[in-house]
Amino acid sequence: MTGRSPSTPFDDRVRPDVAVVGAGPIGLAIAWRCASRGLRVVVHDPAPGSGASAVAAGMLSPVAEAYFGERQLTGLLLASAARWPAFADELTEASGAELGYRTEGTLMVGLTGDDLAEARRLWAYQQGLDLPVTPLRPTELRDREPALAPRVRGGALAPTDHQVDPRLLVPALRTAAQRAGAVLVPQAVRHLSEVDARVTVVAAGCGAAALTGLPVRPVKGQILRLRAPGGAAPGFRHVIRGYADGEPVYLVPRADGEVVLGATVEERSDTTVTAGAVLRLLRAGVDLLPELAEYDLVEAVAGLRPGTPDNAPILGPLPGRPDVLTATGHHRHGIVLTPVTADLIADLVTTGVADPLLTPFRPDRFAGTAPDPTAAPGAADLDVPDHTLEEDS
Amino acid sequence: MTGRSPSTPFDDRVRPDVAVVGAGPIGLAIAWRCASRGLRVVVHDPAPGSGASAVAAGMLSPVAEAYFGERQLTGLLLASAARWPAFADELTEASGAELGYRTEGTLMVGLTGDDLAEARRLWAYQQGLDLPVTPLRPTELRDREPALAPRVRGGALAPTDHQVDPRLLVPALRTAAQRAGAVLVPQAVRHLSEVDARVTVVAAGCGAAALTGLPVRPVKGQILRLRAPGGAAPGFRHVIRGYADGEPVYLVPRADGEVVLGATVEERSDTTVTAGAVLRLLRAGVDLLPELAEYDLVEAVAGLRPGTPDNAPILGPLPGRPDVLTATGHHRHGIVLTPVTADLIADLVTTGVADPLLTPFRPDRFAGTAPDPTAAPGAADLDVPDHTLEEDS
Repeated sequence: MTGRSPSTPFDDRVRPDVAVVGAGPIGLAIAWRCASRGLRVVVHDPAPGSGASAVAAGMLSPVAEAYFGERQLTGLLLASAARWPAFADELTEASGAELGYRTEGTLMVGLTGDDLAEARRLWAYQQGLDLPVTPLRPTELRDREPALAPRVRGGALAPTDHQVDPRLLVPALRTAAQRAGAVLVPQAVRHLSEVDARVTVVAAGCGAAALTGLPVRPVKGQILRLRAPGGAAPGFRHVIRGYADGEPVYLVPRADGEVVLGATVEERSDTTVTAGAVLRLLRAGVDLLPELAEYDLVEAVAGLRPGTPDNAPILGPLPGRPDVLTATGHHRHGIVLTPVTADLIADLVTTGVADPLLTPFRPDRFAGTAPDPTAAPGAADLDVPDHTLEEDS
Repeated sequence: MTGRSPSTPFDDRVRPDVAVVGAGPIGLAIAWRCASRGLRVVVHDPAPGSGASAVAAGMLSPVAEAYFGERQLTGLLLASAARWPAFADELTEASGAELGYRTEGTLMVGLTGDDLAEARRLWAYQQGLDLPVTPLRPTELRDREPALAPRVRGGALAPTDHQVDPRLLVPALRTAAQRAGAVLVPQAVRHLSEVDARVTVVAAGCGAAALTGLPVRPVKGQILRLRAPGGAAPGFRHVIRGYADGEPVYLVPRADGEVVLGATVEERSDTTVTAGAVLRLLRAGVDLLPELAEYDLVEAVAGLRPGTPDNAPILGPLPGRPDVLTATGHHRHGIVLTPVTADLIADLVTTGVADPLLTPFRPDRFAGTAPDPTAAPGAADLDVPDHTLEEDS
């Protein structure tokens, strides 16, 4: 362990090197990586892990989520997914905790002829990017997952799209960050002037909008958790993603019997669970995998993803504030993007040099789109750090 | 108030007149009625109101629930529903609590042509019994409930089928019973020998089977609670019952915005909520009333109704044990049957004379169908009360 020993109490009279605002997976991973490099790190969050990650499914799916018109995002997703195996090993080692990391791969399916046609257009695009997508014959599909409904018309395999359990990931990251010496402060930060550190990292999810003025908006997602009856494991092993009568849906099986069934994507900022969304999810899930009808419905929740105008995260220095780095706007990709975000932001903090991977995701791509709340009273009093951050390379 | 004043502490050294086992609505109403007549009453229940009533919808629907082959049950349902207005008034007076008693009536509808044909067969039967069922023209149906789906093919009105809120009813009954002098003992009764009173009333719902040997079995029901968005009242006033693609379903609107959507009828004894049941209920509910899709889904629960071989309750003395009265097996009708059960059992306790209404529901109609657990050790030591109960008149 390269960080400060937990037996050396953090001296809060000394100004920290890094203050991270937000203790979701992104903020905690950044804190872990920075503390492991010997930096003094504080993390501010009144309720660690209570944001989007608390309801996330944990799919690590750069291939299945490679959509038309998002090539730069796809590149980042692939780069992060490639880091996941080593990241999981390191984190398990550092925390002593299981993460539910599974590598059976992802099946992409279409229920009806129309669903399959839609899916095939996407697979062709993904194959055009040389991504590992293997269309399966119906018999091959059933050999892999006999529990799929006979009605399912066709599918393809994305063998490198894996999964992790976000509800195990967050406590593991918290343990690892604290063992490396990071200090968690259970307080909300309402303005950046309340934070005193050489570098501030805003990893506050949807809360980043109020802190930075960046165009981060809440995107509601409703999601269900089912459980196989009698304590059994689910009757399928792959992550299953598909279209069912036009409804996009995914099913994530956990070893302990849980199945995550999600998720809606709604331009709303409330977190109520609605009858219509639960109906749509259950109908699509049961249509694809009939045995789900016999599963216990143990949870129906809604969360808010931090969305951005181009669906891509916002990573790097805030315009005019080189001492403030943002790591937010991960939308539906926060879990898969955790390793690359943590590594590159820690590099930026440590070396002042931004990796070229970050270039498309710089905050200044939205320059002029919103007022600057950092110009509020007190912001002018903040020190500018004595190292300069190179914002592009 | 004719009962014992709550300021006169109950002397537990004196043998009670009546011990009621079970503090659901049936047991509490019996306790209230008996205590109001000056009897010393104790009620045993470790968790009052935690049985079937906790999930019940509270429909008072003797007409809509008048089914083929259940004429004696229908008679009892009608007799009890007729007592409900006065019962509600008295209980509100005695408890000072609201009951959510509403009299807008019940609409019975059919979604498809097949559903309507099925419904019409039942309405014809109900009209043949001279029950108040008024078929409505489609325009009349929409005038009454504009929120009904345009697809709904037809309906009928049962103006005398009302509703009450069971979650308000139980605390009101508890207050009324205690104010009348009844004493609640928060202990489970595992054998009748643990109870010492002149008369024991078994109102333990599904628990009556183990106590009496009577053929009471759990019948699982899954039920949802929705809430109109923004704190509004639901967009409909009647209780709506119907068939939707063959699925029987009901919707009960409450003044506070709640809508109860139920219910499955399953020959199972677990209380898990299953994905398939929630899907069926939501699909049927939204098909009948599309605006429900926008409602919050606030609760999905399962409860166990006390069912009997003939779907009718078991009311009266246990064979061979004139000191033990049963009031159980109310199945799907516990709320509507509360007043008549309480009145007639209290009469029987007080006078020893059984009302003729009780005759079809005597426990001895199942004589010989089950072993007699009251013959277990200790039962022979019980006193037989010095008044004899006339079991038939």
